[in-house]
Amino acid sequence: MASTKVVVVGAGPVGSLAALYAAQRGYDVEIYELRNDLRDPSTVPLNFTKSINLALSVRGITAMQEAEPNTPEGERKLLDHVLAATIPMRGRMIHGRKAGGDLYEEAQDYDIHGRTIFAADRGALNKRILDVLEGMPNVHFFFNHKLTGADFRRRKAWFEVKNGTDDGRPKEVEVSFDLMLGADGAHSAVRYHMMKYTRMDYEQTYIDTLWCEFQIQPKEHSDAKDPMSQFRISPNHLHIWPGKEFMFIAIPSEDGTFTCTLFAPGEKYAYLEANPSNVPDFFDKYFPGVTGLIPPQELIASFEQNPHLPLISIKCKPHHYSSSVVLLGDAAHAMVPFYGQGMNTGLEDVRTLFTFLDKHADGDRAKALEEYTAYRVPDAHTINDLALQNYVEMRAGVLSPAYRLRKFLEEGLSKYLPALGWQTKYSRVSFSNERYSEVIARSEYQEES
Amino acid sequence: MASTKVVVVGAGPVGSLAALYAAQRGYDVEIYELRNDLRDPSTVPLNFTKSINLALSVRGITAMQEAEPNTPEGERKLLDHVLAATIPMRGRMIHGRKAGGDLYEEAQDYDIHGRTIFAADRGALNKRILDVLEGMPNVHFFFNHKLTGADFRRRKAWFEVKNGTDDGRPKEVEVSFDLMLGADGAHSAVRYHMMKYTRMDYEQTYIDTLWCEFQIQPKEHSDAKDPMSQFRISPNHLHIWPGKEFMFIAIPSEDGTFTCTLFAPGEKYAYLEANPSNVPDFFDKYFPGVTGLIPPQELIASFEQNPHLPLISIKCKPHHYSSSVVLLGDAAHAMVPFYGQGMNTGLEDVRTLFTFLDKHADGDRAKALEEYTAYRVPDAHTINDLALQNYVEMRAGVLSPAYRLRKFLEEGLSKYLPALGWQTKYSRVSFSNERYSEVIARSEYQEES
Repeated sequence: MASTKVVVVGAGPVGSLAALYAAQRGYDVEIYELRNDLRDPSTVPLNFTKSINLALSVRGITAMQEAEPNTPEGERKLLDHVLAATIPMRGRMIHGRKAGGDLYEEAQDYDIHGRTIFAADRGALNKRILDVLEGMPNVHFFFNHKLTGADFRRRKAWFEVKNGTDDGRPKEVEVSFDLMLGADGAHSAVRYHMMKYTRMDYEQTYIDTLWCEFQIQPKEHSDAKDPMSQFRISPNHLHIWPGKEFMFIAIPSEDGTFTCTLFAPGEKYAYLEANPSNVPDFFDKYFPGVTGLIPPQELIASFEQNPHLPLISIKCKPHHYSSSVVLLGDAAHAMVPFYGQGMNTGLEDVRTLFTFLDKHADGDRAKALEEYTAYRVPDAHTINDLALQNYVEMRAGVLSPAYRLRKFLEEGLSKYLPALGWQTKYSRVSFSNERYSEVIARSEYQEES
Repeated sequence: MASTKVVVVGAGPVGSLAALYAAQRGYDVEIYELRNDLRDPSTVPLNFTKSINLALSVRGITAMQEAEPNTPEGERKLLDHVLAATIPMRGRMIHGRKAGGDLYEEAQDYDIHGRTIFAADRGALNKRILDVLEGMPNVHFFFNHKLTGADFRRRKAWFEVKNGTDDGRPKEVEVSFDLMLGADGAHSAVRYHMMKYTRMDYEQTYIDTLWCEFQIQPKEHSDAKDPMSQFRISPNHLHIWPGKEFMFIAIPSEDGTFTCTLFAPGEKYAYLEANPSNVPDFFDKYFPGVTGLIPPQELIASFEQNPHLPLISIKCKPHHYSSSVVLLGDAAHAMVPFYGQGMNTGLEDVRTLFTFLDKHADGDRAKALEEYTAYRVPDAHTINDLALQNYVEMRAGVLSPAYRLRKFLEEGLSKYLPALGWQTKYSRVSFSNERYSEVIARSEYQEES
């Protein structure tokens, strides 16, 4: 009997991890990626439209850990390498200005038990998974391949190969498969073709918020013996300058920089685009202290040079069709970035999918995919909603006395009443592998009780 | 100055009417249609996935009337011809069985003033508009043309022509345009390509209901002098057999037949598909009297031969991009058929769009399309929601004493208190051109008062 052939579309972190899971199980794996290999120095970074830094938490870590089952800590090719390059973040640091005019910052730990999330570099993580795959004999890469069509009954797909012919015109290739994994992002071509085969409920919403990246540079003179001394603000926090309509955040990188993001309504962006010289004043008014970390001319330059990008939220159901295709990551559930769970959810998709594929490994793959959709869709919808809700909390709630009192009581209850299983919603989302839908069911119960 | 070139994609009733409006204004009009000309006898009917009969009401009538402005009644090429071929329906006829076992039917007039809606043949209406267009020098048809791509900045589109080359392979043609009107249905290719240019909020939902068509044949022996005598049940009603989970409806045709539709959950369809011989018993149980109108063997044959089709509900926003493209009809707002407003809304889209295009005829078309979206989207969303709500009412509510009391009171108030502008929601939707969103705002006010 021929081996099962798994075609993965998309070589981002989610697609690459899915390829690794499939390869570990002995499947024949082919990965098709629209762009060039991101390890090739000539490649335009994948993260042109993706945040450079991301918050890795337990779900993403568990998914990577289980990609190399039974491998002890210290010998894992993937997770050990990835974790070594991260920076732990123990909480939020809220920045503001006191009534008298002085700046203040207030640390809010994520977890009373001291557990942290980790700032990671998306590109480095992605490259590491590709490197691990490179060494596997049953994995083959096809970069610069664009999916142009798929027949999910006959299990055939068509790709256009960039510069595939001598005269520079694209060439089309036909590819057969047993199972296609669509990890090709929010604007997924796999999903588009799948919608012709299944009656998919689908919803996409753009929130009225654009984002743009900035950078805080390291200190020029720091203590060489203490690499932490190069950071201008605490490296162990996710920094937030909340505003009613705006928000500015900063996430640390290993090299001492912070990658920062300005979130603001389209109208405010239009106002600043009309006259970028207003950017520093805008920052001084709403994000006190930032012009002390990023010089005004740099703020203006970043605002002018970096793209101003939209935020999309996507829900769909089912995530699969028959026994031939399943969607993973943003292709299934792009979410706004305000819970730091987007990639964690995508990596967890992979782990979850393979528990169902393993369960039915000798049997009915259609049944495995059907069970996966039934199990995963409520969780994907839940974290999608939570991410939107957290936007509201991050912008305003983190400053309110009521929020802080509730947080204090919840954290206290979590510490002193562990026998009751009392934990904050944030802890359950970020520090456990509990189903998102169960986190919410339990959290609603706690709020009512 | 060259004339404005309008490319209409989709030659259904909505696309054809849009072409007529554009042609009346002197624009150069080209109509591209995926299928063959439906007036060609070899063409597979357009209505393979569309209901044959539809309920034409004031909005659709007004839109056709204004396609030939200033043309007196009796001389209109389009509306006079269309109306002559319709059958007025003055209300619903509810069918059921009394507690004692006897059949009963109860007429519920739509309107206390005696206004009616009209049963019309979709194909005949569509052909009539095409015939009117055929005679216009500034209109050109391109059948068997499939939209494969569009650049809405450069205003170019690409179509694949079926059997376009001698060897039978498709040929691709490039078409330039000033304005594209996308009237290519629920699975619109125009919308798909437009979504690459604008940040569109989009939602599609399949309700858990399938539909299948049946027919009630005319009486074999009827009075030749009285064409109405050939109908087996009242020709002037929309007949409903309500059920909690199911519904069967019948709409009259000029030839004495009724086109009937079974609506039921997918699970019930699966049960009947597994053993179609159960169909007559199912009808006897839930739709009393139908087996007296359609012989059991015919019921089974229709169930086996006619497609079992899904129902999709679509909302999107915006309906346009820049000055180059706008969506009309199902492409913008496919709805479930339970308010009988789907095509009426589509035809009203055309009338509404051209009021904005006319307003800005010498100016900024982007502004016209922007105003159209702002004006039309709330109305499209409203009728979409109403159609879903009416499903619930038609299945169950029409039988409930509370519904009948409320209807009686509303109708009474509408008749006796016209000075207060009191009208039922149904009347405002079906017998006026009032904006859907205003119908609802007023109706909510009435319910509260």
